[in-house]
Amino acid sequence: MHRNKLIEQIKIKRSYLCVGLDTDINKIPVHLRSLPDAVVRFNKAIIDSTKDYCVSYKINTAFYEAQGSKGWASMEETVSYIPDSHFKIADAKRADIGNTSSQYARAFFETINFDAVTVAPYMGEDSIRPFLEYNDKWAIVLGLTSNQGAADFEMLKVGGKGIAGRLELQEEYLYERVLKTVSSWGNQGNLMFVVGATQDAEFENIRNILPEHFLLVPGVGFQGGSLGNISKNALTSEIGLLVNASRAIIYAGSGENFSEEAAEIARQYQQEMSTYF
Amino acid sequence: MHRNKLIEQIKIKRSYLCVGLDTDINKIPVHLRSLPDAVVRFNKAIIDSTKDYCVSYKINTAFYEAQGSKGWASMEETVSYIPDSHFKIADAKRADIGNTSSQYARAFFETINFDAVTVAPYMGEDSIRPFLEYNDKWAIVLGLTSNQGAADFEMLKVGGKGIAGRLELQEEYLYERVLKTVSSWGNQGNLMFVVGATQDAEFENIRNILPEHFLLVPGVGFQGGSLGNISKNALTSEIGLLVNASRAIIYAGSGENFSEEAAEIARQYQQEMSTYF
Repeated sequence: MHRNKLIEQIKIKRSYLCVGLDTDINKIPVHLRSLPDAVVRFNKAIIDSTKDYCVSYKINTAFYEAQGSKGWASMEETVSYIPDSHFKIADAKRADIGNTSSQYARAFFETINFDAVTVAPYMGEDSIRPFLEYNDKWAIVLGLTSNQGAADFEMLKVGGKGIAGRLELQEEYLYERVLKTVSSWGNQGNLMFVVGATQDAEFENIRNILPEHFLLVPGVGFQGGSLGNISKNALTSEIGLLVNASRAIIYAGSGENFSEEAAEIARQYQQEMSTYF
Repeated sequence: MHRNKLIEQIKIKRSYLCVGLDTDINKIPVHLRSLPDAVVRFNKAIIDSTKDYCVSYKINTAFYEAQGSKGWASMEETVSYIPDSHFKIADAKRADIGNTSSQYARAFFETINFDAVTVAPYMGEDSIRPFLEYNDKWAIVLGLTSNQGAADFEMLKVGGKGIAGRLELQEEYLYERVLKTVSSWGNQGNLMFVVGATQDAEFENIRNILPEHFLLVPGVGFQGGSLGNISKNALTSEIGLLVNASRAIIYAGSGENFSEEAAEIARQYQQEMSTYF
């Protein structure tokens, strides 16, 4: 999907909501669980009921892989059901040497028609480049994540490359270096960055580093991040945000009317978002 | 697989060779390509012909995912064909927030019977812990990789956590910090680290940091790393190495007798390894 189309959809719907389909067979309503295509049925009902309130769906590949090849087939069927109007994200956290990343890009951009895939930066440039070589496809690179473990490496202070034994010290976090370096490999039409909603204190700084890029922000809802704070600190004139909620929406209800309850939570997010435009 | 069993297999075979099944449908012999189960046939023939010379197989998930759910099924069938005597690695470079990493662990340790999965460290402790909670299963965490991009972040010099505005400087690379920090989360029976064969200059240093851990070493053969140098610098009394070759072995031949040609290259690696014991 082209950046302009994404922005247009956001403005039409007055929503920058992404619904995360982290569909766990053990958490969906009991009356669906025994059906052979339970996950797909659940996802289709959630998509039907929430699509007016969101602009994007994010598929967390782990939950599908836990079901093996059957789960992978459920993912394929789910993605093909998502309307063309919606930005389709494979939350897969992939990346490997270039030769292998090319295969991941093929998996998510050709074999399945995702618009974007989340990518881990540790292995550097050649592990990310293959995802940037497609028209209107996106790499969404991990910047500062929402989890506790973000403190372990992402928040380490880094310096220069230690050339000639002399450390050229720059007081910046690893995640900042990742944002600066990776953003030089692509542009605002093929790169986004993941910033967790729980990282309130860093949002202003991140917008200074990336004034225009879209940020994918997980961690509202179940993980406790504040939609208001994120929006205040990170919205741009071209929006520049996709805010994801997964469990808070898809597991809002557990009975026969689960999809209506999911829709109601999605609608509440959209309503709040509409006030920030 | 328990560490003792792996060491025993290595000593019996006088081999620490891992064969990488990076099976690309477009690179396997022409006479197989049109068959419906081409990838599985190819893999089974390679396994049959190389299993006496290696102790491990490494499945590069990207090449299977590029074929969609059908590819994932080929991976499942391939893994179930690998003998119990061989250490089975999912080279998947996964990791996400804890809740999601648990699903990946389930995918590779329960739904499919891998012994180990490769894991990216960027997201920190809770993204790795779920892989360490299984008996006789392993996380193989990226340390210093074999690709050019390793210089971008893995070789950055890092300092302290910047607490109270004061940087406590330690002149070490990010990858060294990863080895030290991650190794404190597990033990020599559930953690290995990836170190690329092309990183000759760092092997002695890595052995100082991790005197006993197994290292998974890709990058010999096609990528140019030297088996002799690695073995000289990193072998321990309990071996502590799995050296992987993928393309150099599985694509050694392209005709009807491809599996014999693969076996010959695997045999040559084993022969050389036997001289380093």
